[in-house]
Amino acid sequence: MKAVVFDKDNQLKLVTDYEKPVPQKGEALVRVTLAGICNTDYEITKGYMGYVGVLGHEAVGVVEEINDEDKSLLGKRVVPEISYGCKKPECPWCAQKLYRHCPDRHTLGIWRKDGVFAQYFTMPLETLFEVPENVPDNQAVFVEPLAAALEITEQHHIKPFEKVVVLGDGKLGLITALALNAQNLDVTLVGKHQNKLDIAKAQGVKTALLQNFPIEKKYDVVVEATGSVSGFETSLALTRPRGVLVLKSTVATGKELNLAPIVIDEITVLGSRCGQFPPALRLLKSGKVDFSPLISAVYSVDDAIEGFEKNKEKDTLKILLKF
Amino acid sequence: MKAVVFDKDNQLKLVTDYEKPVPQKGEALVRVTLAGICNTDYEITKGYMGYVGVLGHEAVGVVEEINDEDKSLLGKRVVPEISYGCKKPECPWCAQKLYRHCPDRHTLGIWRKDGVFAQYFTMPLETLFEVPENVPDNQAVFVEPLAAALEITEQHHIKPFEKVVVLGDGKLGLITALALNAQNLDVTLVGKHQNKLDIAKAQGVKTALLQNFPIEKKYDVVVEATGSVSGFETSLALTRPRGVLVLKSTVATGKELNLAPIVIDEITVLGSRCGQFPPALRLLKSGKVDFSPLISAVYSVDDAIEGFEKNKEKDTLKILLKF
Repeated sequence: MKAVVFDKDNQLKLVTDYEKPVPQKGEALVRVTLAGICNTDYEITKGYMGYVGVLGHEAVGVVEEINDEDKSLLGKRVVPEISYGCKKPECPWCAQKLYRHCPDRHTLGIWRKDGVFAQYFTMPLETLFEVPENVPDNQAVFVEPLAAALEITEQHHIKPFEKVVVLGDGKLGLITALALNAQNLDVTLVGKHQNKLDIAKAQGVKTALLQNFPIEKKYDVVVEATGSVSGFETSLALTRPRGVLVLKSTVATGKELNLAPIVIDEITVLGSRCGQFPPALRLLKSGKVDFSPLISAVYSVDDAIEGFEKNKEKDTLKILLKF
Repeated sequence: MKAVVFDKDNQLKLVTDYEKPVPQKGEALVRVTLAGICNTDYEITKGYMGYVGVLGHEAVGVVEEINDEDKSLLGKRVVPEISYGCKKPECPWCAQKLYRHCPDRHTLGIWRKDGVFAQYFTMPLETLFEVPENVPDNQAVFVEPLAAALEITEQHHIKPFEKVVVLGDGKLGLITALALNAQNLDVTLVGKHQNKLDIAKAQGVKTALLQNFPIEKKYDVVVEATGSVSGFETSLALTRPRGVLVLKSTVATGKELNLAPIVIDEITVLGSRCGQFPPALRLLKSGKVDFSPLISAVYSVDDAIEGFEKNKEKDTLKILLKF
């Protein structure tokens, strides 16, 4: 089958004769229809996690085969949560369905598990979720980053009267602002690109250009979605004493960081990664968010390498791969 | 009066003719009997906060004069909380007695307010707390760092079955470990100095030398009390996924920091500074903690500069100044 592989020589390649995976007991074989490139995929091609194999963890597809008595998902359109755990009875993470923290986990295209940039992938049945009929593939493919955005409200109770700033208008910031706004929270998206801010604005999110936004430490919750040290510092400067700074992106470490304000203002820095899929699918089904304006381009899998190049461009938002 | 002053020329001096302060309306004049040198005082002599004036914020003394109708504290032995706020009716911080976060605050010996390394200081009555009779001066003088340690349990609910590590066996780490242990929490103090660890061990705290302590990410709460970047990194490596890393000391910024584990393991970094005094005084009154083994030396105010020099030595714990 065709697959986009990061190989042992640190080369990103389209392979046409990659071995089609065979579902193990309890697993399904999924035929990919549409997949999305995430910045984590790009980081992996720079050596992140030391991963080698098929890339990709954002996808929608159709279940073609099930190695289990329960065939209920056969033929259904599904999206895969990205990690599966050990499922041992003594694992508290698996018991909570927080497979992403299971110390013995496998993660699609990131850690010990071939990813979704291929014609087929396999995953355990409990990680697959049926896509509601009214949600097209080009929305369903956003379920993973949307779930990651909603994770913030799983980890921390944002009260209805609190003020939230999302800093950074890349896809992470846009998806987060749209997701929180769809939950009737008081969100302002702050970024440097009017054209990107306008995507959120068109869906009712308050927006501001960074250059016009007063930097005052008065926001209850600030989501850092720039991935830069200066963005982290600006986020700190926007968080009120005893407020919460949500760290969504792995901040690059090319510069010294001053952590003193965290102590002086008794700020909580909340690391936040992936989320569970059911609330994200519910939000997609409701139609309260529309991610199609975030799609910069759709490439055939045959042109996947070109899609990766396009993803590096500054103005690009989401690149999709069609299978 | 005698006062230890950090002056405009960045000189630390003992001044003998410093003007005795006059209590304003609502304030008391306190005659200092014993004071403690904190590392923050040392940081200030290196330029921290740009402060100029009388140093010091840890003290016990006797109220000699009150400029208010309420004279109930006159002649009483008291300890001062270190900040006072604007007390305007619209200030949410002052309304909660969280004067330390009032944006218009004054802080003893740190910010816009002469400190306690002098024969007298003044503070508003609401910041002064009477010391219980059975608590001697050399315990009462620890109330400020003890309150800062107890602040952790104000900010975060540590459950009785959770495992806590305090990293760093300097005075901050020792006081924190003793304070949490006195609340029947499951605490292990980890440090590099057997002689310091033994102080906590003698009062029932579990202790371990860092070199013998397995670095596993399995602790629910880790208190970083080393103030070093490597300590911060070790603390991160000890915190379980979704656990809490309490940042108690202003981490020095001489090195790049990798914040990725905070996101990957969804860790909460909780900045924690000062605390309220009543719980600290209650704990001192109970006799469940004894800070006298932490006293490295007591200097007369006349030898205060020598005391500051001694404070810089690696093996020194608490230096007290007697007035």
